[in-house]
Amino acid sequence: MCQLLGMNCNTPTDIVFSFEGFRLRGGLTDSHADGFGIAFFEQHGIRLLQDDKPCARSPVADLVQQYKIKSENVIAHIRKATQGQVSLANTHPFVRELWGEYWAFAHNGHLRGLNKIDGEYFNPVGNTDSENALCYLLENLRQRFRYKPSRDDLFATIAEITKQLRKYGLFNFMLSNGDWLLAHASTLLFYIIRKAPFGEAALVDEDVSIDFSAVTTPHDRVAVVATLPLTCNEKWQQLAVNELVMFSQGEIILRDCEQPAEYLSVAEGLSIARQAGVEM
Amino acid sequence: MCQLLGMNCNTPTDIVFSFEGFRLRGGLTDSHADGFGIAFFEQHGIRLLQDDKPCARSPVADLVQQYKIKSENVIAHIRKATQGQVSLANTHPFVRELWGEYWAFAHNGHLRGLNKIDGEYFNPVGNTDSENALCYLLENLRQRFRYKPSRDDLFATIAEITKQLRKYGLFNFMLSNGDWLLAHASTLLFYIIRKAPFGEAALVDEDVSIDFSAVTTPHDRVAVVATLPLTCNEKWQQLAVNELVMFSQGEIILRDCEQPAEYLSVAEGLSIARQAGVEM
Repeated sequence: MCQLLGMNCNTPTDIVFSFEGFRLRGGLTDSHADGFGIAFFEQHGIRLLQDDKPCARSPVADLVQQYKIKSENVIAHIRKATQGQVSLANTHPFVRELWGEYWAFAHNGHLRGLNKIDGEYFNPVGNTDSENALCYLLENLRQRFRYKPSRDDLFATIAEITKQLRKYGLFNFMLSNGDWLLAHASTLLFYIIRKAPFGEAALVDEDVSIDFSAVTTPHDRVAVVATLPLTCNEKWQQLAVNELVMFSQGEIILRDCEQPAEYLSVAEGLSIARQAGVEM
Repeated sequence: MCQLLGMNCNTPTDIVFSFEGFRLRGGLTDSHADGFGIAFFEQHGIRLLQDDKPCARSPVADLVQQYKIKSENVIAHIRKATQGQVSLANTHPFVRELWGEYWAFAHNGHLRGLNKIDGEYFNPVGNTDSENALCYLLENLRQRFRYKPSRDDLFATIAEITKQLRKYGLFNFMLSNGDWLLAHASTLLFYIIRKAPFGEAALVDEDVSIDFSAVTTPHDRVAVVATLPLTCNEKWQQLAVNELVMFSQGEIILRDCEQPAEYLSVAEGLSIARQAGVEM
C-alpha cells in the first residue's frame, strides 16, 4: 500500500510544507521506498514529477522542495509496490486527457479480479491495478458522455462507477482535472481546510513548523488531504468509509456518503490493509 | 519557431552532452526564451520535464543535466512562442495515450487555418496549433485502427496524415511511442548516427567536447536529430524537404521522401520560416 497527499486551493499555493513531511514517509520515517510521483496543475496544464528512487532521497523530490511550484490542485503518491514491478510506467499519478482536460489519478489500496480493460478510449500502459482502474473509470465516463456533463452529473456518475470499482477491494484514491479534487476513502483519508485566521502548524514527521499567517492572505483557502494527518497540532477531519468528496476552491462542494457514516480508527485501517495483503 | 532535439538508441543512453548545447539555445546563444520541455521514455513509461522559464536558466533543465536520465527515446523542444500564450498547457512535448502506449510529440513550425478538432478520442487542452495537430494525427490513426497495426502500416498511415497536415504550413516534428522515433522535415532537420568506432565530438554552442569511445560499448548505436547540427566536427545528414524518417534501435528503418529530394540551405530554411511569420 502507499500514501496519498492532495491539495486544492482557491489561489495558487506551494505544497512545500506538506510535501516535506510527506516525503519523509518515503524511506525515512516509513517504509514506502519504491518511488513517488506528484502532479501539479497549473491552470489546465499539468506538471508530473516522478522518480523510482525513494522519495526521501530523490533529486526529483529535491526539485519539488526547491522550486516551490504554485498550484491550485496537487496529487502526490508514495509507493510501496504490491502489484506490478517498480517502473516508471507503474508510477502514480497516472494522467490521461478526457474532454480536452488532463485528469490525474493516484490510488492507495489493491483491487483484485478486475480484468485488464480493453477500452475504446483508454487503456493502461503499465500493469498496475491502479492505472487499470483509472482507465475503467474514464472509459465509462467517456462511453456515457460525448461531451463534459454538468459538475453534478459528473460527480454522481463518478460516485456510481466508484461503487462498482470498490467491490474489487481497497480503493482510496484522489482524482483531479485541474478544477476540482476528488477524494474517496475505503479506509483512511484525512483532510484539513486552512483559512483565515491562519495559525501555526507543526509536522508530525519532522521537527518543522510554519506560521501560515505569514505566508497567506485573508482570502486564501487551502484544503489538504492525506492518508494520515501530516501535522500534530491541527484538527484533521476524517473521510467516512466509502465516502466520496469533491473539493473546489479550497472547500467541500459535493459529498456522497453512506448512512450511517462509519469511521475507522487508524489501527483498524492499518489492520484491514494488512488483512487484504497490502502494506501501508 | 522553435528548436527540436531527438534521440533514439539501441541501449539506454543519457542525452546530457547533446542537451548541454541545445539548452544554451534557450536564452543564451539564441533567442528561444519562452520555455522548454523534454520527454524521456523509460521502456514504455514516460518522464516529461517542462518549464516556462528560459531553458538556459531553468532549474528543471539543471535537473536534466545532473540526473543523467538514461533513455532509448528522447524528444526535447525549446519554444519561442508564436501562437498561444506561454503556459504549461502550451508547452511541448505533448503526450497522449494511444493503444496502451504513451506517444510524445514536439513541433517546430506553424500551421495556419487548421480548425480546432472536435475529436471522438483526442482533444487539445491548450490552444496551440501544435497540440491540435497531434490530436488530429492521433484521432485519424485511432479512427482508422481499433488496435495497433503493423509498423509498416502505421508508418504509411502517419506519412499520409502528415501530407494532409503540412498543407497548413511548416511542420517539422518529432514523434515517439517509446519504440521508435519519427522525424519529419518541412524545412530544417539534421541527424547523426553515432556507432563504433566512436570518436570525439565538440559542441557548436559551447567550448565542450566529449570522447564517446570512453562512454560507450562497441555495440551502442545512437541517432541524434536536431533542427541544426549540435556539433562542429562531425558530419550531420540533412532530412529532405517533406521527408519522414523512422528511427529504431539507433538506425533508420523506414523513410518516405519525395523525388527528386530537395535540401534547403540553413539560410533558405531560416528565410522560409521568417516569410511564414515565425521566428527560428
